[in-house]
Amino acid sequence: MSLKSLFYPGSIAVIGVSREEYKVGHLIFDNIRNSGFKGPFFPVNPKADEIHAIKCYPSILDIPVDVEMAVIVVPAKFVPKVMEECGKKGVKATVIISAGFKEAGIEGSKLEKEVASIAKSNGIRIVGPNCLGIINTDSPYNASFTTHTPKKGNISFFSQSGALCAAILDWSTEEKIGFHKFVSLGNKADLTEVDFLEDFLKDPKTKVITGYLEGVTEGEKFIKVVSEVSKKKPVILVKAGGTDSGAKAVSSHTGTLAGSQAAYDAAFKQSGVIHAQSVQDLFDYSIALAYQPLPLGRRAAIVTNAGGAGVMTSDACERNGIILSQFSSETVDRLRSFLPSAANVYNPVDVLGDSLAERYLRAANLLINDENVDSLVAILVPAAPTQIKETAIGLAELSKRTEKTIIACFMGKDHVKAGIEILIDNSIPNYYFPERAIASLAAMYRYYKYVVSPEKIYQKFDVDKEKVQKIFATAISEDKRFLGDEEAREVVKAYGIRIPKTELAKDINQATEIAERIGYPLVLKVASPDILHKTDVGGVKIGIKNKQELRDSFDDIIWEAKRYMPNAKILGVILQEFISAKREVILGMNKDPQFGPLLMFGLGGIYVEALKDVSFRVAPITESEAWEMISEIKSFPLLRGIRGEKSADIDSIVNSLLRLSQLVTDFPNILEMDINPLMVYDKGKRSVATDVRISLGG
Amino acid sequence: MSLKSLFYPGSIAVIGVSREEYKVGHLIFDNIRNSGFKGPFFPVNPKADEIHAIKCYPSILDIPVDVEMAVIVVPAKFVPKVMEECGKKGVKATVIISAGFKEAGIEGSKLEKEVASIAKSNGIRIVGPNCLGIINTDSPYNASFTTHTPKKGNISFFSQSGALCAAILDWSTEEKIGFHKFVSLGNKADLTEVDFLEDFLKDPKTKVITGYLEGVTEGEKFIKVVSEVSKKKPVILVKAGGTDSGAKAVSSHTGTLAGSQAAYDAAFKQSGVIHAQSVQDLFDYSIALAYQPLPLGRRAAIVTNAGGAGVMTSDACERNGIILSQFSSETVDRLRSFLPSAANVYNPVDVLGDSLAERYLRAANLLINDENVDSLVAILVPAAPTQIKETAIGLAELSKRTEKTIIACFMGKDHVKAGIEILIDNSIPNYYFPERAIASLAAMYRYYKYVVSPEKIYQKFDVDKEKVQKIFATAISEDKRFLGDEEAREVVKAYGIRIPKTELAKDINQATEIAERIGYPLVLKVASPDILHKTDVGGVKIGIKNKQELRDSFDDIIWEAKRYMPNAKILGVILQEFISAKREVILGMNKDPQFGPLLMFGLGGIYVEALKDVSFRVAPITESEAWEMISEIKSFPLLRGIRGEKSADIDSIVNSLLRLSQLVTDFPNILEMDINPLMVYDKGKRSVATDVRISLGG
Repeated sequence: MSLKSLFYPGSIAVIGVSREEYKVGHLIFDNIRNSGFKGPFFPVNPKADEIHAIKCYPSILDIPVDVEMAVIVVPAKFVPKVMEECGKKGVKATVIISAGFKEAGIEGSKLEKEVASIAKSNGIRIVGPNCLGIINTDSPYNASFTTHTPKKGNISFFSQSGALCAAILDWSTEEKIGFHKFVSLGNKADLTEVDFLEDFLKDPKTKVITGYLEGVTEGEKFIKVVSEVSKKKPVILVKAGGTDSGAKAVSSHTGTLAGSQAAYDAAFKQSGVIHAQSVQDLFDYSIALAYQPLPLGRRAAIVTNAGGAGVMTSDACERNGIILSQFSSETVDRLRSFLPSAANVYNPVDVLGDSLAERYLRAANLLINDENVDSLVAILVPAAPTQIKETAIGLAELSKRTEKTIIACFMGKDHVKAGIEILIDNSIPNYYFPERAIASLAAMYRYYKYVVSPEKIYQKFDVDKEKVQKIFATAISEDKRFLGDEEAREVVKAYGIRIPKTELAKDINQATEIAERIGYPLVLKVASPDILHKTDVGGVKIGIKNKQELRDSFDDIIWEAKRYMPNAKILGVILQEFISAKREVILGMNKDPQFGPLLMFGLGGIYVEALKDVSFRVAPITESEAWEMISEIKSFPLLRGIRGEKSADIDSIVNSLLRLSQLVTDFPNILEMDINPLMVYDKGKRSVATDVRISLGG
Repeated sequence: MSLKSLFYPGSIAVIGVSREEYKVGHLIFDNIRNSGFKGPFFPVNPKADEIHAIKCYPSILDIPVDVEMAVIVVPAKFVPKVMEECGKKGVKATVIISAGFKEAGIEGSKLEKEVASIAKSNGIRIVGPNCLGIINTDSPYNASFTTHTPKKGNISFFSQSGALCAAILDWSTEEKIGFHKFVSLGNKADLTEVDFLEDFLKDPKTKVITGYLEGVTEGEKFIKVVSEVSKKKPVILVKAGGTDSGAKAVSSHTGTLAGSQAAYDAAFKQSGVIHAQSVQDLFDYSIALAYQPLPLGRRAAIVTNAGGAGVMTSDACERNGIILSQFSSETVDRLRSFLPSAANVYNPVDVLGDSLAERYLRAANLLINDENVDSLVAILVPAAPTQIKETAIGLAELSKRTEKTIIACFMGKDHVKAGIEILIDNSIPNYYFPERAIASLAAMYRYYKYVVSPEKIYQKFDVDKEKVQKIFATAISEDKRFLGDEEAREVVKAYGIRIPKTELAKDINQATEIAERIGYPLVLKVASPDILHKTDVGGVKIGIKNKQELRDSFDDIIWEAKRYMPNAKILGVILQEFISAKREVILGMNKDPQFGPLLMFGLGGIYVEALKDVSFRVAPITESEAWEMISEIKSFPLLRGIRGEKSADIDSIVNSLLRLSQLVTDFPNILEMDINPLMVYDKGKRSVATDVRISLGG
């Protein structure tokens, strides 16, 4: 689907242009007039003859030529009629500025649906309603009521907050950040972030995609699209809002710990989105990605004319996972050959406060050419002799000669301004503070890792799907929301997750046979549909070590059961494998209202409950995502083994997570589930799910 | 000690003023000339007759009048001679700009000591050497080679990085931040951060104290002074540099986990320092504290004209521990009475994008007068109709009428500039991004909590200090760095930390008597100076439950010992209390090179080793600091009891920490120690140190 009519219309009508200059319709019309749009544009207002000496039409139908795009600014209740007229006129795209739709309650919501339906039947696309408008600096036109038209550039932006758009445009002017397309999403009655992601991907003039979201419209589609887009262009998003949408089941551990925030974090991580925590981060990362090539590694060289600033930068590197390069001995020798003796020739290289441009740039050149360096961070403080412009020019030349990443931190304002302008004009991003420079470099590196990550392959295990279908069908027919113990275990077993070996013995002879198969030690349980609390009647024995103990216990169990509950039907005794694995982990799933099945992993018991040390991913997951889930929890060292302990069988956890992923993907009606615990043996000895809870719904 | 001669000198000489305009001495002389200094000032240079038509003297001794303060810019090797002359001339304070001292190696270090010694014997104070100079905007004078003189204001600043000073001055001009005193510390040959903290405290024109440090000179004194200063004026510090100074023992858990960063974090926390993580934070917090009264609680009201910005602000509150106020029903009703129906009348209050100043301010007024509100966060986005100046003026008036904290976030640049200027002129801090506004508000609230915290009282327990002295004396006389098991336990016992009850029985009769006293179950161990590995010879029995088992085991132990080691001298059997407490914690101490004894607390075993979930404080600590140490670890819920478990006896941990604090304060020669584990029983049932390691040194 092309949004050409929206972004490159041949002609525009603004429907609802007031004569009063401060009114929204008028402001938009003025912005179109002043932004250099090359096609014809028409004001529509039944009460005016002309506006700014441009002929005004009572209705769009009265315009004598074709209209490709219309901006609608009339009160909400008139929008259906206007949309009908747009249909008749053959309009292809509309931007509805008017408020009073979904955001205003039930009536507004109905009205919005009506408008969307009229548009759809006429093949018209909608941006909004309840939005600020859109801008394309290339077309060029500004069909919004912003006070600014941004500078032309290669960043495109969409925003779910119209008001924030205004602030962002204001900042971007000061920071000299240029935009290509700028979209206020409004209520997203038709076009959503996904449509614009697709458009920006195909658009050769957009290099970096940015956005502010409060929620996504279709979670699964969003992940699919943004995962693909991110492989080709960086997508930087701010996600605001911490409250959960929709009702949420909280009967499971996973349900308690999962939340909208966890789901967004997981979805963004899996789909390569560069997650900005604030609008400031969004800007910082945008210019880095718009201006500079990606670093091919995490080894940075720092050059500075101030020791203190170098120290701050090193601190920031450590916090952000950027490594200070170890220079080759050749580089160190060469640095030593011309730097004063008080200078530091190791990373961060301090050329000292009295350095002129020549010394600084000679060092910078050496660093960027060292094969142990992936990026150069150029720190400059305005000391009295510092040649700010000359240094900036030299860095700009350096940047042209290298494929490596260069970012700058010329610290200060007025005194460094001239230098910063040179840097920006030469596509070197500058940050006022080292922390922000390094955070941006780290974001670039994380994005680079996503770009080069192998294509996702989802393993498909050979499973007994039909059996699970039957179990679920039975549960649903019995109106059971929670599956029983046995059924839940059977479900995971059908998907190849090991559960304790269990068999029913009718008599002692059968029991001894079974015991040989399962192996000692054993757990025995009375088998009776009438006995719910087996322990209370002496119906459970654990740690049965041999044939003699089996005989004794078997008899005991039958005897006690009969004694306590003479009328109970006793089917025999269940023999179950005794699980002696030391480590417990939890695998869980909770259905997120936006993104669907959200998988959770954590260490069993206290780690999950008290420390909330868990990780999340949206299903389905790949093998490497399963590994990430396991290794990113803080208590991971306990699994790998500390103090010379053997490692747990992490491969078997990965395998179980993948099988769980397949299960919850195959059965969207699983609302929540916990495998708690999955008992994990030492490396190579597998793991066993001893307790499983599944609830069905929706 | 007064620094009056330094900050308010009657006259100034600049020794080493070059005729060349770009040279440092010349720049400083120009800065003094141009900064409005009211007393006489003299250039000293044997090679010039006059500079800028001001008579130049060959030596300070040739100046015909008294000189109170001298700025020294001659090469390092001439500084001793110049300092001698300053002594003869009766100079009281000097600022040594010259480099080539301690920072340049061993020779420089010697030279620095020589200069300091000359100054001391002449009663002269020194700032520097190797510094940028100092500024006092009140005196006023600028005796530095910065390119700027800052605006006059009530923030004072010291910095261990001279170059950073330059950048900070440059920023401060742009951000309209005013300074009072501005000091580049240099090598701190004489005056250190502690001297300036004391001066700034007494100085009525300094309201907020700020500083950039890479290390402190005297850790213990620093803590003492800054703790007192912080009670009266906010002290905001950036600490850069993550490497540890000096050699560090790493034979204990505490030693491994403690580090310079942990020690600084602890020291800052305990002494009320507002710890800024970057220079940006330093600025942000400074203006909040310089401009606004402290919030008396953590309940903030947010008013905004943009929903999205409100959401971002709420998110930031949650991350920073700021609570969104619950308004009184009266406030909500009143808001509803005049706000449009689409507005949000709950926190954050969204007055909508079409709001003019009147509506916004009416809401702001209601909010700040609600008794459930401690602070107001005013968010404004430049939508088309927004009356930015009018809104700023209204907020300024509101601020004059209230004692509550108001901070603003007018988002944007050019369009909101006029409003921001009004805000700043009326002492309302403005932040470009909500996250920064809320982080600053949170810093103010944390500081308020320190200001109102009760005076620190260090408990003194009645302990057997003499016994510990003897044990240590013996160990030292035997040249033992590590204390033996028994001795280490005796040490903590002497300080009232419970250890397992232990008694030696020579025969079985004595053993049965002792057993009655200690109580069953018991642990038995063979007592023999010749048997080191007691378990190997069957010399240890645990879980002895009654008299019969005691008899049997007693005989067994003696028998086995004699059988395996016929020549060993056997003194009898040690009876020891059997400790069955479920929870293990670690208390530790590591001697920090800067701050002295650094206490550590964590949960036993894996929590410390794998999760590094520990807390630190510098000893001595108060009872409430001990509580903080315990409750700030992430695994604290495990101590308090989860899943209906009983709470551990946290009081006994507090008590043990305080006793440990007293011990390590009394004995500075303890280099490291671990009580690992302290076994903790349920609430009310105390705790027992079962294993103690102590190493001595220094």
